[in-house]
Amino acid sequence: MARKPRNPSMEISWIMVTAMIMLSSCSSNLLVCGEILWKPTWTKEAAKEAEVVAGIGCSGHGRAYLDGLVLKGHHHLPLCDCNPCFYGPTCSKIQLNCSANAESGDPLFLEPFWMRRAKESAILISGWHRMGYTYSDGTYISEVLVKYIQRLHKMVGNAETDGRFIVFGAGSTQLLNAAVFAFSPNSSSSSHYSPAKVVATAPYYPVYRQQTELFNSLDYRYEGDTSLWKNKTLSENNNISRFIEFVTSPNSPDGGLMKAALHGSNVKTIYDHAYYWPHFTPIPASSDHELMIFTMSKLTGHAGSRFGWALVKDKAVYQKMLTYLDLNTVGVSRESQLRALKLLDVLLEEGDGTEIFKFGYSTMRKRWIVLRKILSNSKRFSLQKLTPHYCSFFKRVRNPTPAYAWLKCEREEDKDCHAVLKAAKINGHPGSMYSADDRYVRLNLIGSQDYFGVLIHHLRYLLAQSY
Amino acid sequence: MARKPRNPSMEISWIMVTAMIMLSSCSSNLLVCGEILWKPTWTKEAAKEAEVVAGIGCSGHGRAYLDGLVLKGHHHLPLCDCNPCFYGPTCSKIQLNCSANAESGDPLFLEPFWMRRAKESAILISGWHRMGYTYSDGTYISEVLVKYIQRLHKMVGNAETDGRFIVFGAGSTQLLNAAVFAFSPNSSSSSHYSPAKVVATAPYYPVYRQQTELFNSLDYRYEGDTSLWKNKTLSENNNISRFIEFVTSPNSPDGGLMKAALHGSNVKTIYDHAYYWPHFTPIPASSDHELMIFTMSKLTGHAGSRFGWALVKDKAVYQKMLTYLDLNTVGVSRESQLRALKLLDVLLEEGDGTEIFKFGYSTMRKRWIVLRKILSNSKRFSLQKLTPHYCSFFKRVRNPTPAYAWLKCEREEDKDCHAVLKAAKINGHPGSMYSADDRYVRLNLIGSQDYFGVLIHHLRYLLAQSY
Repeated sequence: MARKPRNPSMEISWIMVTAMIMLSSCSSNLLVCGEILWKPTWTKEAAKEAEVVAGIGCSGHGRAYLDGLVLKGHHHLPLCDCNPCFYGPTCSKIQLNCSANAESGDPLFLEPFWMRRAKESAILISGWHRMGYTYSDGTYISEVLVKYIQRLHKMVGNAETDGRFIVFGAGSTQLLNAAVFAFSPNSSSSSHYSPAKVVATAPYYPVYRQQTELFNSLDYRYEGDTSLWKNKTLSENNNISRFIEFVTSPNSPDGGLMKAALHGSNVKTIYDHAYYWPHFTPIPASSDHELMIFTMSKLTGHAGSRFGWALVKDKAVYQKMLTYLDLNTVGVSRESQLRALKLLDVLLEEGDGTEIFKFGYSTMRKRWIVLRKILSNSKRFSLQKLTPHYCSFFKRVRNPTPAYAWLKCEREEDKDCHAVLKAAKINGHPGSMYSADDRYVRLNLIGSQDYFGVLIHHLRYLLAQSY
Repeated sequence: MARKPRNPSMEISWIMVTAMIMLSSCSSNLLVCGEILWKPTWTKEAAKEAEVVAGIGCSGHGRAYLDGLVLKGHHHLPLCDCNPCFYGPTCSKIQLNCSANAESGDPLFLEPFWMRRAKESAILISGWHRMGYTYSDGTYISEVLVKYIQRLHKMVGNAETDGRFIVFGAGSTQLLNAAVFAFSPNSSSSSHYSPAKVVATAPYYPVYRQQTELFNSLDYRYEGDTSLWKNKTLSENNNISRFIEFVTSPNSPDGGLMKAALHGSNVKTIYDHAYYWPHFTPIPASSDHELMIFTMSKLTGHAGSRFGWALVKDKAVYQKMLTYLDLNTVGVSRESQLRALKLLDVLLEEGDGTEIFKFGYSTMRKRWIVLRKILSNSKRFSLQKLTPHYCSFFKRVRNPTPAYAWLKCEREEDKDCHAVLKAAKINGHPGSMYSADDRYVRLNLIGSQDYFGVLIHHLRYLLAQSY
């Protein structure tokens, strides 16, 4: 059948319309038009590399990172970092009889939060980004980031920032010793001072002791548990000794909200508030102490970025901490500061700023429900007792959902709880590491979902045998 | 005139050809096609932000950085960081009678190198990049980056890496004290040891003294200039004292290739090789010492990234340094490590890997020619004497082109050379800061071109008056 001839002028206008649609679909709105037509130039390769890496699935049981792919001359690395108990180049193989490594505190439970905010949380760093030592105000501390940290604390209501100085460190770790240094009298300037006594209440985070002993300073010395000093009249040492007490609240390993054991004019207290976020604990009130330390690691989950901060009331203490930071590392990596800024911006600008805490708390709550259920009828093992509190952030009474389980072996013969668990393929930290009884073991609950699954699997099996 | 009717089937094939061209211009080459058609999805916003920031010109006298723009809720920052003597929101205003700040060691002379390699040196960091503490091998040190550092030293021929362990630090700064710590006998383990004596030869970099004094350790103590110890029989202290000597080669402030002053079984030497790159010095031979420290700051110019490394011969010393790094900061920021990896990849993969050194040396050489010319006929000021050496990297004899000028005031009355220069609007570091005579001043020569222009302008004016 012969085709019916069409009107050529109609053809021409059809072509024109097609071209109009294809080439300038956004002529009615120039802003949207710019958005649609924008194409990367010098950033294209970096953007593509990042998307290629993100597209490597690792069978859903691992993660590919940019480190292996940014390199032109380097293509033979295994690209996938596999989750616990998975292996192979694409993490597709499962390791039978594999142990749960519940030792580390890798905060990967927040990874899904950031994967869902890929667009919002990405940053592209140019080759010439902040090559110099200082920001425009001549310091090593980003002023904008200071303002964001203040906004964050005001929004969460977990720490007072008014009238406080803010100093940055490579994670809270670097700030712990900076604070000890700043609170210690300087032996060279006043020869009648004995070294400050650094103390903590067991069970306590071992880094306080290890770090203080590592630096082996004339100005301060680790002097064990606060219980050794609490009942002595501190005033008798008034003129010769300063006490520096570490208070971890919520506590690592057991999640309790702690208060200082020592008081007096010769006592200085360092509040380690690494876990004082709604993920892990009800927030009864805004913390208002002389020196408070926080870390991004347990807030956003970015342990690898090594970014923490201290809120400091006294200007002289702040200045001593700055001197410490300058002479130790010349401040904190500008890349880490840029990343912290971007991540805090995502937190603060999404909705009312509470999304990450809803996500974090919801994840931790589910894990604690599973854990409590498994252990509910056990006479062999028990968990730490936790008291519900009113949470000023969620505006209701809630249970704590700590980062770690502080498990106790209740049987008389199970003196070495770590060994009991290890035999059941669960590797935790023994109680003695925290200056507590070895009937206790600390188990990490903030790892990836794969890791938590393995832990729960082994615990269920152990409990089924132990009944 | 009536239009001639066209063949409708020809119209249709024309439309099809147009569509073919517009929609699949690359059907003949699928690879190129993918490259052309690839469009960013979740990385687009970050890529655009980076290009927008890079497009802010700051009148050619400043730089806009991402820190001010990544923030949704923050649009009121002055975006431009202006170069010395320029000011205003777009750095368009020139400050009359402005001083040259020749104090800092900001290595911005390499910034143009990276701006010309925008595409190659950009990295896009996803929100979930390396949130955990460790790399897949369980350490805090990127194994790929270790391999790149080894390749770099082999290519440049400035340090032996075979049989060496590599440890990372937050710049060389953190590694200086880590090395002192690792070389010191531990007082708690052997009570008959006295603290190690930390020494250096004047003029020397003041951080060695300041940092050692800051930590005020029982294990080591700053004991001044090597000249105090050189002529004493070291063997008389053999059983009681260890010496730890800092050797900076090339030296800061004066650029000389230095050797250890002290020798003996009780002497340990830390080679600070921050400036041992072809930018600044001929490379007579590959350095082959027990402990050598390098920093990205003076290699690529990225001082703000806080990334350095040490090459260590002895395993026990390496392990002590690792312990120090772990307990001080839990290793180095993973963002800094990723950036270092990308930058080294750009260095190593372009041509034969020598481009940055050609650029760096060429820039420094031009600056030294200008400087020498200005001062050539002066009887009032002199520069440090520098000896040409054979450079195994450039394969010819060349002059050193140090990072700093070590200027001397020759007039009897000019005892305070710093004050003389300051009156002429040139702010350097006084000689006494380096434990040298105040007839000397250290002037930074590695800043931005704008800064160097101001320095030269003021120097010319001073010399014209001083003749």
